[in-house]
Amino acid sequence: MNYRMMGKFIAQILIIEALFMIPAALISLGYGEYPTMWSFGATIGITAAVSAALYWLCKDAPSAFYAKEGLVCVGISWIVLSLFGCLPFWLSRESPAFIDAFFEIVSGFTTTGSSVVADVEGLSHGALLWRSISNWLGGMGVLVFLLAFTGGAGKGFTLHLLRAESPGPDVGKLVPKMRSTASILYLLYIGLTVVDFLFLLLGRMPVFDAVCTALSTAGTGGFGIKNDSFASFSPYIQNVTTVFMILFAVNFNCYYLLLLGHIKSVFKDEELRMYIGIILAAIGLLTLNIRHLYGSLGESIRHAAFQVGTLVSSTGFASTDFDLWPSFAKAILMCLMVVGACAGSTGGGLKVARLMLLLKSLRRNIRQTLNARKVQVIRNNAQPVSERVLDNTNAYLAAYVIILFLSFVLVSIDGFSVETNFSVVVSCLNNMGPGFAAAGPTCNFSGFSVLSKLVLCLDMLLGRLEIFPILVLFSRSTWKR
Amino acid sequence: MNYRMMGKFIAQILIIEALFMIPAALISLGYGEYPTMWSFGATIGITAAVSAALYWLCKDAPSAFYAKEGLVCVGISWIVLSLFGCLPFWLSRESPAFIDAFFEIVSGFTTTGSSVVADVEGLSHGALLWRSISNWLGGMGVLVFLLAFTGGAGKGFTLHLLRAESPGPDVGKLVPKMRSTASILYLLYIGLTVVDFLFLLLGRMPVFDAVCTALSTAGTGGFGIKNDSFASFSPYIQNVTTVFMILFAVNFNCYYLLLLGHIKSVFKDEELRMYIGIILAAIGLLTLNIRHLYGSLGESIRHAAFQVGTLVSSTGFASTDFDLWPSFAKAILMCLMVVGACAGSTGGGLKVARLMLLLKSLRRNIRQTLNARKVQVIRNNAQPVSERVLDNTNAYLAAYVIILFLSFVLVSIDGFSVETNFSVVVSCLNNMGPGFAAAGPTCNFSGFSVLSKLVLCLDMLLGRLEIFPILVLFSRSTWKR
Repeated sequence: MNYRMMGKFIAQILIIEALFMIPAALISLGYGEYPTMWSFGATIGITAAVSAALYWLCKDAPSAFYAKEGLVCVGISWIVLSLFGCLPFWLSRESPAFIDAFFEIVSGFTTTGSSVVADVEGLSHGALLWRSISNWLGGMGVLVFLLAFTGGAGKGFTLHLLRAESPGPDVGKLVPKMRSTASILYLLYIGLTVVDFLFLLLGRMPVFDAVCTALSTAGTGGFGIKNDSFASFSPYIQNVTTVFMILFAVNFNCYYLLLLGHIKSVFKDEELRMYIGIILAAIGLLTLNIRHLYGSLGESIRHAAFQVGTLVSSTGFASTDFDLWPSFAKAILMCLMVVGACAGSTGGGLKVARLMLLLKSLRRNIRQTLNARKVQVIRNNAQPVSERVLDNTNAYLAAYVIILFLSFVLVSIDGFSVETNFSVVVSCLNNMGPGFAAAGPTCNFSGFSVLSKLVLCLDMLLGRLEIFPILVLFSRSTWKR
Repeated sequence: MNYRMMGKFIAQILIIEALFMIPAALISLGYGEYPTMWSFGATIGITAAVSAALYWLCKDAPSAFYAKEGLVCVGISWIVLSLFGCLPFWLSRESPAFIDAFFEIVSGFTTTGSSVVADVEGLSHGALLWRSISNWLGGMGVLVFLLAFTGGAGKGFTLHLLRAESPGPDVGKLVPKMRSTASILYLLYIGLTVVDFLFLLLGRMPVFDAVCTALSTAGTGGFGIKNDSFASFSPYIQNVTTVFMILFAVNFNCYYLLLLGHIKSVFKDEELRMYIGIILAAIGLLTLNIRHLYGSLGESIRHAAFQVGTLVSSTGFASTDFDLWPSFAKAILMCLMVVGACAGSTGGGLKVARLMLLLKSLRRNIRQTLNARKVQVIRNNAQPVSERVLDNTNAYLAAYVIILFLSFVLVSIDGFSVETNFSVVVSCLNNMGPGFAAAGPTCNFSGFSVLSKLVLCLDMLLGRLEIFPILVLFSRSTWKR
């Protein structure tokens, strides 16, 4: 393990984090929230100082980086990022317990959006903005940001980094240079976020609210600014957000191809087709199932579409308390939550691409059992998928299931109902946000013990970084010389 | 697809089923339960007649059989077996609805043990005995029985058959000849069942009760003869049953090796060690967690051990209503239910061997990510495991998860609580029997709709035959010429 290389890298990550805190500090100043302003100021100072010291210590690090360092570096960066990122909440006493502040920011960076704060409307503007910024930055990835705008540290590192931080079974390069790929992704991301913001303004949302909402939506994070999430917003704003949640959960490669004019190849994309199919089917079934609960067909469709958008993209907003919906609707929502978004998007979950690979791999397995001599290659968009990617996809599912059950047992110690425990774990592991039952859309996570909160923080990180960058931190081979 | 071969095979299966119904007919005669006696008599007649006709039609079938025919044959045999096996319940009006009779016998043959009968004590002796016989026959497998005592039909078929009907990721031959392997398995099975029966008699259980209980325990089926399952039995009988449930969920290869005197190699068996480890850990944790609910430490251990035995072996008896236990205890029990028994036993679930392979394969995946150039072989008991078996294990998990969610959605249409729906599906898919919540140990499945019952029947068959023999029936390639 190349520790100096890692140190230099983390130093760069920290300085980016400090920069992103400045808007929160300024908004607190603007609203006269001095304790919040000072805690942001102090955190920026501490973070910058640590970053400078670390950079100086590790300045002559070598630049050859391998897959192992890439994974470990991503895992550690996210933990360090969260440790510094939670300081403003803790210093300002908006989250008096450190674990709560830590939970809140992990939930933010991993775009989970679960909160330990019961009264969101009582938070300062600075804290609200920082929560939304954490959703936004975590959505596309802070290391990808570093790569996009500074070129990252060291050659060879870039591909491993992008692989480790970007969701999905396989990361495609848009253009030959990784740095350009990262820049294109971020520019598209910024562009879409701005468009969302403008649409919200058109719905007469106040500027501050629109900024926060657009940032949280873009990251499919789900940190809201109202206690009732989206229930009191106008149908127009709900509909705009539905569309954008679904858009941000699409593979960003598709947008790049659209910009280049390759419209046909976008609509031939197998993952995108399956994703759209899932969404339409789910909206249809839900509308039928909840039709009797709402006054008009239009209202039923609006709520069905909003909840499908929020769960499939793992955002975690809610336009209505779907915990009161019939079991069939809840079952469909839970499936959406587990399947999740497209690979290469800001959404969470297993990813549609992985589900597709699992299904194809299962079909191949059955065919080979029936006809042992036939060797079959699995294809995605007509390209053969390497056995390595299939093997990783299978390992991912196995790890996912094992982590799910282990976390479920540990969280159960607190004694909440089985449904609650299961759903909070599924929700954190899929970076969903509000779950069902006691952790439903109208509730929060403050009742859990410190152990459970730590387990859930770990689950959120495992979910966001797709398991392996965190799992390798627990492997003996990682730390062996 | 060789249809005549299949017909000849099913004819043989049916005649065995008819033979196994005779004891139930006789016991009904003995107790003067004439309607039951007549319905068994009629079913035996119908079954024998269909069998004879089928055999005559297909008598000159060729004898070369391939993997495909093996799988399909196992899948279809079990469905046919259930269609005829449910007739006595239906004809005697003990289950007036055909779907209920079908559910009951599928639950029996698959050793699930879930019942649609609310008042078990009101059933005739014939019906009770047939329920327990179905547990016993389904436990080791009816096709294995055919192979053991008649030699089966056709060469080449035997290995595919044993593979398809025996649980576990890979089936080892005990001796070079498959027929001898099957005979040894059945002799061991009969021997252990008799020992269990004798132990129950020693506890002063009436002979009829002891026969039924021993048969249901041996098949890890869980069809009981009392409305309160095991709660009113003496601690001695509960303890005997705990031990035998755990014993019947051990790989039968271990008993064969023990008989041959290879004691060391049995205790070096990795699966057995993990199985014992899981059981001891679970009993320990449960005892701590439920200590306050019972009068003495001994009683807590007894109930903990009984429930661990019943859930890890997927039997489905209950000595107490564990649905009232704390969430932590319930979480552990659910994990046991999913992990299940050892491969090559009569128990259900994912199987300890599969969990072990998944963990090893995951570890290899992590190591290879860290060190791409190193090629690693996975070993089990020092023997290399073929990539084919690993691939099947991964496909099994993927299929399991996908089937679980699809069934969950379908069962949810009935509108029971999320916990109930989820737990009945998990329970049926793992051949567990009584689940949690509304399907808990003190309840039954009669409230579900016909659609749900069909889905659950399919889940039970998928669970018992380990997915693929049933799944291939839905594959187009199976029916292609």
